[in-house]
Amino acid sequence: MSQPKKTRTSVDIYGRNYTLVGEEDLHHMRLVASTVDDTMREIYQANKSLDTSRIAVLTAVNTMNDYLKLKEDYDALLKKTEQKED
Amino acid sequence: MSQPKKTRTSVDIYGRNYTLVGEEDLHHMRLVASTVDDTMREIYQANKSLDTSRIAVLTAVNTMNDYLKLKEDYDALLKKTEQKED
Repeated sequence: MSQPKKTRTSVDIYGRNYTLVGEEDLHHMRLVASTVDDTMREIYQANKSLDTSRIAVLTAVNTMNDYLKLKEDYDALLKKTEQKED
Repeated sequence: MSQPKKTRTSVDIYGRNYTLVGEEDLHHMRLVASTVDDTMREIYQANKSLDTSRIAVLTAVNTMNDYLKLKEDYDALLKKTEQKED
């Protein structure tokens, strides 16, 4: 059996370096990193007293919120599509 | 004009307290917080040398990755649905 090809890339997020490994292509992985970096900088601008750890947790919270809402929308759209095909 | 009703709740994520404010209901906000907490603990278990800030950034990266992939799937499904309706 062949293993899925892994991509490994080095990215900077909020001034620190991370090595990301995944099955996605390089473009996608860099987009993920730069979107996290942008969100962290926006949260810092909104509240400059937050430390890096809290900024990162709030970035994760905002992203998880968006993900869970989109998952509900996706599931609802999928259900609607399947009903039409019956 | 009436403003959208804001929900305010206090949650614990990875041992620190956060006040979350949003337009979502309380159940959704607590689900978001507990899913972030679970993901941070999984990342810690996989690499116990990571500090909290790096664990939180990697949680944000994983969640952003899932979000951007789901967004592509959602947009593709929406396009397919709209084409059928033409």
